[in-house]
Amino acid sequence: MNTADMGLSGAEGRTGGTRGQGPGGSARTDGEPPAGGWGKVGVPSTALFTDRYELTMLQAALRAGTADRACVFEVFTRRLPEGRRYGVVAGTGRVLDAVENFRFDSGVLDFLADQRIVDEPTLHRLARYRFRGDIWGYPEGEVYFPGSPIMRVEGSFADCVLLETVVLSILNHDSAVAAAASRMAVAAGDRPLIEMGARRTHELAAVAAARAAYVGGFATTSDLAAGFRYNIPTVGTSAHAFTLLHDSERDAFTAQVETLGSGTTLLVDTYDVAEAVRTAVEVAGTGLGAVRIDSGDLLLLAHRVRQQLDELGARDTKIVVTSDLDEYAIASLAAAPVDAYGVGTQLVTGSGHPTCSMVYKLVARADSAAGPDATAPLRAVSKRSMGGKTSVGGRKWAARRLDADGVAEAEVVGSGEIPDELRDRLIQVPLVRNGEIVGREPLDAARDRHRAARAGLPLSATQLSRGEPVLPTEYV
Amino acid sequence: MNTADMGLSGAEGRTGGTRGQGPGGSARTDGEPPAGGWGKVGVPSTALFTDRYELTMLQAALRAGTADRACVFEVFTRRLPEGRRYGVVAGTGRVLDAVENFRFDSGVLDFLADQRIVDEPTLHRLARYRFRGDIWGYPEGEVYFPGSPIMRVEGSFADCVLLETVVLSILNHDSAVAAAASRMAVAAGDRPLIEMGARRTHELAAVAAARAAYVGGFATTSDLAAGFRYNIPTVGTSAHAFTLLHDSERDAFTAQVETLGSGTTLLVDTYDVAEAVRTAVEVAGTGLGAVRIDSGDLLLLAHRVRQQLDELGARDTKIVVTSDLDEYAIASLAAAPVDAYGVGTQLVTGSGHPTCSMVYKLVARADSAAGPDATAPLRAVSKRSMGGKTSVGGRKWAARRLDADGVAEAEVVGSGEIPDELRDRLIQVPLVRNGEIVGREPLDAARDRHRAARAGLPLSATQLSRGEPVLPTEYV
Repeated sequence: MNTADMGLSGAEGRTGGTRGQGPGGSARTDGEPPAGGWGKVGVPSTALFTDRYELTMLQAALRAGTADRACVFEVFTRRLPEGRRYGVVAGTGRVLDAVENFRFDSGVLDFLADQRIVDEPTLHRLARYRFRGDIWGYPEGEVYFPGSPIMRVEGSFADCVLLETVVLSILNHDSAVAAAASRMAVAAGDRPLIEMGARRTHELAAVAAARAAYVGGFATTSDLAAGFRYNIPTVGTSAHAFTLLHDSERDAFTAQVETLGSGTTLLVDTYDVAEAVRTAVEVAGTGLGAVRIDSGDLLLLAHRVRQQLDELGARDTKIVVTSDLDEYAIASLAAAPVDAYGVGTQLVTGSGHPTCSMVYKLVARADSAAGPDATAPLRAVSKRSMGGKTSVGGRKWAARRLDADGVAEAEVVGSGEIPDELRDRLIQVPLVRNGEIVGREPLDAARDRHRAARAGLPLSATQLSRGEPVLPTEYV
Repeated sequence: MNTADMGLSGAEGRTGGTRGQGPGGSARTDGEPPAGGWGKVGVPSTALFTDRYELTMLQAALRAGTADRACVFEVFTRRLPEGRRYGVVAGTGRVLDAVENFRFDSGVLDFLADQRIVDEPTLHRLARYRFRGDIWGYPEGEVYFPGSPIMRVEGSFADCVLLETVVLSILNHDSAVAAAASRMAVAAGDRPLIEMGARRTHELAAVAAARAAYVGGFATTSDLAAGFRYNIPTVGTSAHAFTLLHDSERDAFTAQVETLGSGTTLLVDTYDVAEAVRTAVEVAGTGLGAVRIDSGDLLLLAHRVRQQLDELGARDTKIVVTSDLDEYAIASLAAAPVDAYGVGTQLVTGSGHPTCSMVYKLVARADSAAGPDATAPLRAVSKRSMGGKTSVGGRKWAARRLDADGVAEAEVVGSGEIPDELRDRLIQVPLVRNGEIVGREPLDAARDRHRAARAGLPLSATQLSRGEPVLPTEYV
């Protein structure tokens, strides 16, 4: 039994994607399950990343004869985090991996049976479970607003309901990190951002965070697993421990330069910064790659260190700053002679908003079964009790309306016919068709898309100060 | 290549621990690696949950001849999250799994070679890497304060430095969730808490969060993976989608009760709460297990629903409330007729503090190699530059001093000899000895320990309002 290393196997990176696609668009390098079942292959199941009630609802629907009713579920958020002007869709590619690997293998089924979580007929249904429906969604990297139908999952109730938990886990986490990354990228301008938050979050959340940060505009990561899994460029400097290990700072710098070359980055704030910079240039020469400052008044120190480096002739030696940076601290260093920012805690925790409030709601259903021969009309449904959490029923499209200058002016969401003038502004793309993944793309496509989508928003989108969503959402 | 499903395999749960220990205290059910290497077994490597600089520092230290110097690293935090009165150690058991599985298999080594991350001698060293040192630490569930040496890792620099990132990932994440859980448990008193935040965090962080919540005092989880991996009891109700799937609320309740029995929990706020409660009791009878309210004014609704249930004769039917609860909302419902709380977002995001600020610092080292024959004395080391992030050098013990009434009055941390009166109040326990895991325990032990540790603190520890750490940390 080997359930769920969602982090490091899948489609986009080393073990799959364009490098390793199997027949039929499958991204498993292993192809079909071996005789022994799914237990020992490199693509584990994602089926247990699921709240128990998804399975018991399926059992009840099977018993009532409603499990195959055609359904439309949508993922959206009722609000952006307070003060944020736009959201960033991230995790879409990971959702596709999770859908593909959502299989109930024998270990999982044994567990469900042992614990009497569902009955025999439900176990049989789960054993055969493959998502056979359709998924449309905002492509990864797109921006979103309150009410944007970020993902639409269509199929039988059985098909769709089981995916709720894992779809939300991925989109809520990854989009929160990408939104923070995007704001930091705006603040950093042309200077590269290094993701270095692995130690501040769950070890596999860290891998997803590095991926989301890359989508949001980060250049590199310190996390080797993210390099392995998603081919994100990895970088590193050194830690205070390395200096303290040696008999002197000079010994430490010498050890590092001798093996990593003068292009390396030396950490200069273990003892005295000015002395360390002098030693660093003596040891590495004026070709020293960079110095890192990890504490103190970064604005002041960056200016002093730049001046000192220039005076020593190390004019091309870069300055990397790290130390509890967020988008505001990055912006405050815009006028300082800083060449790159390393960001940890505030990135992986979404800079104050570690999750999004995306929900997965049934918005339409038919009275009869889903499938190619389905004839019963879909009817819009929605929770209607007082006290909040209501939503707009109906299967929805979304388009971004532009003004005369080509700048976005509204997020238009509708459940009826699409107005002609919006037909070429539709945002959703097909991601899964009849259970087959059709929406895979390289991670760089999402990264490029995000940059373009953000550039298409009104200028006030990139103000760091608190504000309202920069586009209104119009329902038609 | 199958790196790192840290979430669902390991020692405490289904696939290991007391149920499946192999020879020599190993928790791998698979025993030794098969002929094909680690690539296809159920216990994948954790070695890539590592920042790149850990490996390049090792390379430089190998080149300089300092990689085998005896070192002591300590995990501690300089401060608690603002306003918090105590911290909760969680993740210790997961750290032990991660240390045991920290192996560089061929897939990892190929990646490191391909990317030229380290040189050949370092690759050879990594291929042989097993942690052979000692780890001491606060046992899981203990409380901690600023400066508490939560974990102490001793061995060669090579042994210890590589573990920094993954150790911090686990402790920073899990302890943040456990601290929030503990406050919620205080607020809930004797009423059970249900963890249901999987959809609000990374899918594997969710599994660790459910585990940490259990340590902090939660009773159950909705997350099946947490049930599978850690044997935490799973529970579930149903969603609004299930009601909306059916032609009427009555049909939905009937379907659920017919297959799950009258002891089930019915969701009563899809349309009109009073009508739903009436229907629920008509369908399930007065033996209905529970109703769930997921929106609206929970205080008001709980009173109304309780009265209605009582009037209908369903005096034993419980009321479960959910809907963006945190410790303050739970406390505000203390006088309401609520029987259980379901908590999601605020739990898995640490109720405003999604990570701790634990660091992993070299505090002492020798000039010569670690090992049983080591003779060179350890010398205390610490970063000394101005501008913060300094720490106290030296290998430290910790004890909790009690007052005359047996209530904790200080966290005493020292690097010299232990005063006699504190010898039986020492907090750290051995977790790993000469590379062998010795600190495994059932998860319930950590949960029980937390309850006892919290009860031993001054009464003001459990005030929810913002305050200072309830114990001072004294360095001797």
